[in-house]
Amino acid sequence: MAKVLSGAGLRGQVAGKTALSTVGVSGSGLTYLGYDVKDLADKCEFEEVAHLILKGHLPNQQELTSYKAKLKSLRSLPEALKEVLERIPADAHPMDVLRTGCSMLGNLEGEADFSQQQEVTDRMLALFPSIICYWYRFSHDGVRIETATDDNSIGGHFLHMLTGEKPNELHEKVMHVSLILYAEHEFNASTFTARVCASTLSDMHSCITGAIGSLRGPLHGGANEAAMDMIEKFTSADHAEAEMMGMLERKEKIMGFGHAVYADSDPRNEIIKTWSEKLAADVGDTVLYPVSVRCEEVMWREKKLFCNADFFHASAYNFMAIPTKLFTPIFVMSRLTGWAAHVMEQRSDNRIIRPSAEYTGEDLRPVPTMAERG
Amino acid sequence: MAKVLSGAGLRGQVAGKTALSTVGVSGSGLTYLGYDVKDLADKCEFEEVAHLILKGHLPNQQELTSYKAKLKSLRSLPEALKEVLERIPADAHPMDVLRTGCSMLGNLEGEADFSQQQEVTDRMLALFPSIICYWYRFSHDGVRIETATDDNSIGGHFLHMLTGEKPNELHEKVMHVSLILYAEHEFNASTFTARVCASTLSDMHSCITGAIGSLRGPLHGGANEAAMDMIEKFTSADHAEAEMMGMLERKEKIMGFGHAVYADSDPRNEIIKTWSEKLAADVGDTVLYPVSVRCEEVMWREKKLFCNADFFHASAYNFMAIPTKLFTPIFVMSRLTGWAAHVMEQRSDNRIIRPSAEYTGEDLRPVPTMAERG
Ligand SMILES: CC(C)(COP(=O)(O)OP(=O)(O)OC[C@H]1O[C@@H](n2cnc3c(N)ncnc32)[C@H](O)[C@@H]1OP(=O)(O)O)[C@@H](O)C(=O)NCCC(=O)NCCS
Ligand SMILES: CC(C)(COP(=O)(O)OP(=O)(O)OC[C@H]1O[C@@H](n2cnc3c(N)ncnc32)[C@H](O)[C@@H]1OP(=O)(O)O)[C@@H](O)C(=O)NCCC(=O)NCCS
Repeated sequence: MAKVLSGAGLRGQVAGKTALSTVGVSGSGLTYLGYDVKDLADKCEFEEVAHLILKGHLPNQQELTSYKAKLKSLRSLPEALKEVLERIPADAHPMDVLRTGCSMLGNLEGEADFSQQQEVTDRMLALFPSIICYWYRFSHDGVRIETATDDNSIGGHFLHMLTGEKPNELHEKVMHVSLILYAEHEFNASTFTARVCASTLSDMHSCITGAIGSLRGPLHGGANEAAMDMIEKFTSADHAEAEMMGMLERKEKIMGFGHAVYADSDPRNEIIKTWSEKLAADVGDTVLYPVSVRCEEVMWREKKLFCNADFFHASAYNFMAIPTKLFTPIFVMSRLTGWAAHVMEQRSDNRIIRPSAEYTGEDLRPVPTMAERG
Repeated sequence: MAKVLSGAGLRGQVAGKTALSTVGVSGSGLTYLGYDVKDLADKCEFEEVAHLILKGHLPNQQELTSYKAKLKSLRSLPEALKEVLERIPADAHPMDVLRTGCSMLGNLEGEADFSQQQEVTDRMLALFPSIICYWYRFSHDGVRIETATDDNSIGGHFLHMLTGEKPNELHEKVMHVSLILYAEHEFNASTFTARVCASTLSDMHSCITGAIGSLRGPLHGGANEAAMDMIEKFTSADHAEAEMMGMLERKEKIMGFGHAVYADSDPRNEIIKTWSEKLAADVGDTVLYPVSVRCEEVMWREKKLFCNADFFHASAYNFMAIPTKLFTPIFVMSRLTGWAAHVMEQRSDNRIIRPSAEYTGEDLRPVPTMAERG
């Protein structure tokens, strides 16, 4: 007989093994393959962390150079994929665009067998920024952009395609940090989606497509966009405080706060907050950053709720002039590394993930004839 | 601290509640909302069961008539979706086509909020056969078929589009039975994928797209195709026996046998087996059906492994001249009802599904400088 577990949502229940990360148990609270995320965000480029997560070790200089060159060479969109993206309307949800782009890619360049898992992942890593920017610029500005830029990083490539200009050093650095912070996070809902899919021995594109769909939800990756929608309505720190107090009174959920695993703080917050402050100074902001800080203070004072990774990402991205609806797609560009690594890990020691349910429905009953139905 | 569970794959662990079905505990072993699947397969059309699962009760005559009329009115593909399907090559995996078609539909006719959950599901139910057949006929035969047929059932609509001819009564009946058998199955891997996605409060198209990706796996829905690929190589029952014995000796997994929950038999097998036998008689088969029966005998005698729902589906579909690669897409056309009902159920009492993992990796270590890396 099935065992009834305490708590809904499998909270605190072990659903498998991983060697990829720890959440809330070691270092500052988040480690990737034993390295503290703070240490990585401080010292590494995102491509080093992607290499760490996907290939299992931090690259030396030669490995890094050749990995970056490889990713650079994979930025061109297949013609059929461009044609599909051109048929997606401007008012579509950008996460739906990425989900569809990833799924379409699986039709054009599918994973024939698991020996290709690294290759198809590298291709997605190189291509996701191209997919989102190609669609965005075509549907919003009517231009067909060239996606094969020679930018030196994934974050730089993204900003360059989005604005048409090479990003400055500060922006490129913030993209490295942001992508590193979002890269991996143990058995969160989207990663768990990818693992459940992988456990049927399905292909990589199916696993990643499913994970994108889960990340889209407002309780998960969608929170950075929801946080932005909220804070941009506040005209001052005092205004923010008054509005927040009202929301709390009405028991509304405030996006960008709280976490399923962390109890007192999210280690990613301190890091992105520092960069958001620097960006605020850079653009001469006197509203959004103080508003964000006040939101943080109010939530802690009133509810002992803390900012998760998403909250200060909202202002940081906004200071870099990234449209709000592209916030969650950036999360995808990064988390793809964690998802794919979890898929590979699941495949290496697999049993189909098939839990049980507690039945709460009708007892056995005969099918009534048509005439007997109410 | 996280609790370590016995067994991998969450087997036998309760991951939530459902009122939709029971597996292995009541009646013949599978019930939908309290009705035995045998009873339903005997007495109902698939549209009645779809109504049961999605709307919560078996329809009376008037409800059934209007539900079927509604589904019939929703069979036309949006122009942009046709254009996308035309760009998917003939050698694509049909499950990837459906996954992409479903995802694209989300861009064109998205679920704006949860009040639309029934509407978008009915649209998918009407449209999935159109999506798969439009692509299949375009990529394989170069024709752009009209998908707005006036066939009286989803199964009939599918067979009509596939062959260009109205199906006979036997075939339409078998499609009803088959779609009923596949409609719902508690927390199997694809349904669980849909629920994890739903738990982030993501949209219906994301949940269904993810579920399609999971069903694609050979350990899950893909098994009916794999079973067909195997049995069609056997020229006689004796040949089948000899080959099976070899596979068992080499410890190969034999698709279409075994189950994560059922211990001794899968109640769906007996039902589809009976129909496969009728179809065999109808087409005058003297090989495939006896081969299938022998496989069943050998697996039981040697390993106490029994046929699951997929095994006799292979021969049944083959006798109806359905191409093997469209077997799993038929499963999707049906299971969509269970997936969507589980999404609605998850939404009605939600907490984000976020389990924990047992960490097996490196201890905390400092990030080495580039020069220090091997
Ligand atoms: C992250 C999250 C989904 C974790 O969910 P969880 O583990 O199921 O935790 P719960 O939702 O049960 O939270 C526990 C309590 O804190 C409250 N709470 C949690 N996060 C809250 C928030 N952001 N705003 C207001 N209240 C919150 C809950 O309402 C609940 O209160 P209750 O016990 O009175 O019902 C949840 O904190 C949340 O929805 N946050 C907002 C969305 C978000 O930022 N997501 C990104 C995560 S990186
Ligand atoms: C359905 C299935 C995934 C259930 O998996 P599970 O609950 O994890 O069960 P296990 O794979 O642990 O099976 C238990 C034992 O039976 C064996 N077994 C199960 N199904 C088998 C099969 N189809 N052929 C050969 N051996 C099989 C396993 O190898 C295992 O043996 P072991 O203990 O010596 O390792 C599994 O039976 C299977 O892979 N079947 C074939 C695929 C299929 O038909 N899927 C459709 C399901 S509706």
